[in-house]
Amino acid sequence: MSDAGRTLRFEIVARAAGPARCGVLHTRRGAVETPVFMPVGTAGAVKTLHPDEVRALGYSLVLGNTYHLMLRPGAELVAALGGLHRFMGWDGAILTDSGGYQVFSLQKIRRIHEDGVEFRSHIDGGAHFLSPERAVEIQRLLGADIMMALDECPPHDADAAYHAASCQRTTRWATRCLSARGQHGGALFGIVQGGLDLPLRRAHLDELAAMPFDGLALGGLSVGEGPERMAEVVADVAPRMPPERPRYLMGVGEPRDILMAVSAGIDMFDCVLPTRNARNGSLFTRRGRIQIRNSVHARADRPIEEGCACPACRRFSRAYLRHLYLSNEILGHRLNTLHNLHFFAEFMRDVRRAIREDRLAAFAAEFLSEFEPPVSDRREA
Amino acid sequence: MSDAGRTLRFEIVARAAGPARCGVLHTRRGAVETPVFMPVGTAGAVKTLHPDEVRALGYSLVLGNTYHLMLRPGAELVAALGGLHRFMGWDGAILTDSGGYQVFSLQKIRRIHEDGVEFRSHIDGGAHFLSPERAVEIQRLLGADIMMALDECPPHDADAAYHAASCQRTTRWATRCLSARGQHGGALFGIVQGGLDLPLRRAHLDELAAMPFDGLALGGLSVGEGPERMAEVVADVAPRMPPERPRYLMGVGEPRDILMAVSAGIDMFDCVLPTRNARNGSLFTRRGRIQIRNSVHARADRPIEEGCACPACRRFSRAYLRHLYLSNEILGHRLNTLHNLHFFAEFMRDVRRAIREDRLAAFAAEFLSEFEPPVSDRREA
Repeated sequence: MSDAGRTLRFEIVARAAGPARCGVLHTRRGAVETPVFMPVGTAGAVKTLHPDEVRALGYSLVLGNTYHLMLRPGAELVAALGGLHRFMGWDGAILTDSGGYQVFSLQKIRRIHEDGVEFRSHIDGGAHFLSPERAVEIQRLLGADIMMALDECPPHDADAAYHAASCQRTTRWATRCLSARGQHGGALFGIVQGGLDLPLRRAHLDELAAMPFDGLALGGLSVGEGPERMAEVVADVAPRMPPERPRYLMGVGEPRDILMAVSAGIDMFDCVLPTRNARNGSLFTRRGRIQIRNSVHARADRPIEEGCACPACRRFSRAYLRHLYLSNEILGHRLNTLHNLHFFAEFMRDVRRAIREDRLAAFAAEFLSEFEPPVSDRREA
Repeated sequence: MSDAGRTLRFEIVARAAGPARCGVLHTRRGAVETPVFMPVGTAGAVKTLHPDEVRALGYSLVLGNTYHLMLRPGAELVAALGGLHRFMGWDGAILTDSGGYQVFSLQKIRRIHEDGVEFRSHIDGGAHFLSPERAVEIQRLLGADIMMALDECPPHDADAAYHAASCQRTTRWATRCLSARGQHGGALFGIVQGGLDLPLRRAHLDELAAMPFDGLALGGLSVGEGPERMAEVVADVAPRMPPERPRYLMGVGEPRDILMAVSAGIDMFDCVLPTRNARNGSLFTRRGRIQIRNSVHARADRPIEEGCACPACRRFSRAYLRHLYLSNEILGHRLNTLHNLHFFAEFMRDVRRAIREDRLAAFAAEFLSEFEPPVSDRREA
């Protein structure tokens, strides 16, 4: 593995029984404790929040979406304005995805060639082209601290031949991404595909692990296959990923899935769940989700969660948050987002502490017994 | 004038040549320097902002809309939750309107009786009734620091007989509001009507000035009559309002109208202009408004206004704010609102300083020559 342009150092600081570990990602823009959850800043903003609020919640690494930013305002424009950090006023670290996931999953009109992918913008229908070289160039223009290689992300129910061909293409594209990165440096992660086929996943992992990526990700999961089938893949593949490099499970997610994946040795996560749920009025508590619009909260003079230190719970009642939600007041989206991201930050802190204290399994069981109790035990949080 | 339940004291601290003055409104929840602009917190929130942000911008008095709050979540519910201040997490002062303006201006389906107004909710079509007594009761339930009497607010182009009858009804309702206030105390303002008819305005003012209101307001202006005709009424009537009590021009507004009215002795203003304009991407600068969506700002690596200390200008470029606007990102609405309300807070500070230094006319001329220059001199701000 070449050390050329190495701008990311991963340090493992604690191990529990099994593959779970605590680490520190030393990025160009500061240290990030792992396992880490990255809030999604789709279009140059973690939706509804000021970057100082994201930082105050305890986050030091956010995800930016190459797909959205390449279409609007455009990578060259962001670069001319000093890069994404300066553009969005965020001095923490940024990981950008490659744009591939959105191109493959969201676009009806696209054509995949060996050279790259043609697609049309969902904003104005304009024609665009994303190749491995262009994906790296865009992420470099944005100024990402961690870049992702362009992969082909097939539907989980594609046939075996498609998955196999897709892994081969992803490997060829990975090589091209590394070449494109080579001349400029910068941290770059490869993405393991292979659907739900364990031998294919392992073989693809072996190919990518032999390349000088700074970290490896599992892609093509959390795309509708269901938590059990995802868990089978993660439990098998994650422990085989090179232990000295960070391991990233893309698009996850649910607390139960994070616990499962951390136990299998995953270090990094991203998901729109806390922010999107917030805007839909679905709020996380230790005893499960509540729907703030429900009439049971109409007169509730208590916070979302007693004892929660988030800016919403420190000042406002469920009754007020329900009122803001029903009135479609933007402040409601903000306060809900602050609460849910605070919940995830605290959850990841608890996860890291449990690993350090080597009681991850007990913590996971205790957490889930409250958060997702057996149906017979459930009552309104 | 009775002092029973007097909870508002108005102190005049500086006078300029002419009727303009600086004062302090001593409310139950702290002192408010006048002339003052009140941000509008329609439904229990100054749209997009956390109450701490409103305070940090320099505001200590906001307006709450009785009409909106009586329909949702309901005054009794707000009272059960400890009042509007606690509900919305705001420890500054609150002035509530009477609900009359929305009932008269926004509702197609309404019936005016001597006893009050029947109308239907714009939310669910439900039948509601607003009487002078109920208007005071609702404002008391909300816990307003300053309440407004229920008035009839006719269209500015109603005929003379309608305006005269409306003034008479408003006077009778004013008496009933004062009676309703009597048993509970609390600061209550009367509202002068009379359209654009100066003798009618003066006569109605004389009737209300003889009553024990804590302040008087000019209603029925800024409702489509145009700035010149409004200025005629304000210039004539405002200086005749009792000088020892605060004078409030409702629904204003534009910086030029505020300057005109302050010169005529007005102390208080409210308007959705800065907050609504912000959400439409219309941003205030010393050299006039800019439309942030305009393509001229696409690559602009400078703030809305150089030297502006607002949270938007301290961190973000016009290019970023344009991107947020085009992407319909909530953070854009927030930052734009912070900027416009900062502009109004600074503007009112400058107005008060100009009064104290007895150079209001010079300040107004200088401000308007930059903000609204003759068309031939205009260029992009």
